[in-house]
Amino acid sequence: MKSFTTRLSEQIKKKKSHLCVGLDISPEGLGNKNANLSNLIDHSLKVVDATIDIAVCYKPNLAFFERWGSDGFKWLEKIVGYIGNNSIIIADGKRGDIGNTAQQYAISIFDYFGFDAVTINPYMGSDSIVPFIENPEKGVFILCRTSNPSAKNLQDLRIGQHKVYERVAKLAVNLNKNNNIGLVVGATAPSEIRKIRKIAPKLPFLIPGIGVQGGNLKKSMQYGNDNGIAIINISRGISFAGDMSSFTIKNAAKEYLEEMREIVNG
Amino acid sequence: MKSFTTRLSEQIKKKKSHLCVGLDISPEGLGNKNANLSNLIDHSLKVVDATIDIAVCYKPNLAFFERWGSDGFKWLEKIVGYIGNNSIIIADGKRGDIGNTAQQYAISIFDYFGFDAVTINPYMGSDSIVPFIENPEKGVFILCRTSNPSAKNLQDLRIGQHKVYERVAKLAVNLNKNNNIGLVVGATAPSEIRKIRKIAPKLPFLIPGIGVQGGNLKKSMQYGNDNGIAIINISRGISFAGDMSSFTIKNAAKEYLEEMREIVNG
Repeated sequence: MKSFTTRLSEQIKKKKSHLCVGLDISPEGLGNKNANLSNLIDHSLKVVDATIDIAVCYKPNLAFFERWGSDGFKWLEKIVGYIGNNSIIIADGKRGDIGNTAQQYAISIFDYFGFDAVTINPYMGSDSIVPFIENPEKGVFILCRTSNPSAKNLQDLRIGQHKVYERVAKLAVNLNKNNNIGLVVGATAPSEIRKIRKIAPKLPFLIPGIGVQGGNLKKSMQYGNDNGIAIINISRGISFAGDMSSFTIKNAAKEYLEEMREIVNG
Repeated sequence: MKSFTTRLSEQIKKKKSHLCVGLDISPEGLGNKNANLSNLIDHSLKVVDATIDIAVCYKPNLAFFERWGSDGFKWLEKIVGYIGNNSIIIADGKRGDIGNTAQQYAISIFDYFGFDAVTINPYMGSDSIVPFIENPEKGVFILCRTSNPSAKNLQDLRIGQHKVYERVAKLAVNLNKNNNIGLVVGATAPSEIRKIRKIAPKLPFLIPGIGVQGGNLKKSMQYGNDNGIAIINISRGISFAGDMSSFTIKNAAKEYLEEMREIVNG
């Protein structure tokens, strides 16, 4: 049985890619406030078709599915099945609850939907993480230093010599008995990525914040892949590129990939 | 237009109750691992019927619905409609994401499902809270000091003179322009409830952790209702009481209510 981190690492090598395609498909993103669910489903499948050869991971953000209630969850079921074993699929749900409830979320995400990994919020501590890491094949990415402007409200608070996000990185390292824990670190905070890599060598990093949010791709790749692996999430920059045709989406994804490869190859 | 906190306060007065009934219905809880979704739906409606006269709030925990995928979300839609305007309904989802995504969760929870309030995780800071508090009629309960043992991992870390959870309480007070923000404080940490009340007078408290988790009802009621209002959540202690008949469930809820009333009346 291979651990999640090993599986991720193998996919990166196989596809020669660090690309994670975020699936955050909304009427607003399509620039059509009247878009219906069927339009969104079609677009999401188009994005998958156009990127499946080069995407190491897909990361559907659950909010964009929940918004449509039970029909949105049918869409989520459909898209997980559609991607299948061709790529690693991360449920971006930022879940976190007491142990009894975290167990239910783990059943939902891993057993029911069949995701490979999930994003987790660490505010409630280790109880809220443990139920997700018992199966070594399934992974978690724990929010550490996020990409949004108000990440600093709590994450950057100083506890003695360290900041809150550094304590989270340390907690993740201590819990990583099954080689299946990674961290979410935002591309908008490159110096923090470097600091976190020192605390958490070998833990995979999921790095969002490139594109609309203004993150730094070069530094994210360099610091993230130093003494560990990093996957770079692009959502809007691929799904809503240019005229949103298959051709444009594929090209946008390829351009990001080429840029990543150039950085890796120095 | 009444703010969420005013609406909650009026319900408490009208029903002479501080009871929030948590809806966390699982096969494990029913003591029947073979229970199917239809059994769970029936039981959840039975719990609502048995408690609707005295429950100020219902708090479905979304994990227990998500676990069943799109069919579970149909159940959630059904139960929100079934409770209707007879009680305040809190989506216990502990959501938290960047602004763009938090907006999608707000659409999901308030517009699509029609919940009155939602629980929010503060780790990502104010951006992740603002989209939920723009409509004064809808409320949020921000996780402050939770009831689980590992709450202390992060929440109790000391930043200068204060702990992380105290900073969260302060953040909530600063954001509360629309009188619709409350805090989640665990019954298992009564001295923290008292401290948080000093930082956040008038903010409603949602207090879980009574029953299986071993929280202190008397202190929770006293400290929570001093200079503000508190609702006390009971989940397993009501839904899975005794033989789980309507009669037993109703009686369990009434017993909790009587105990609360005695404490309030000194």
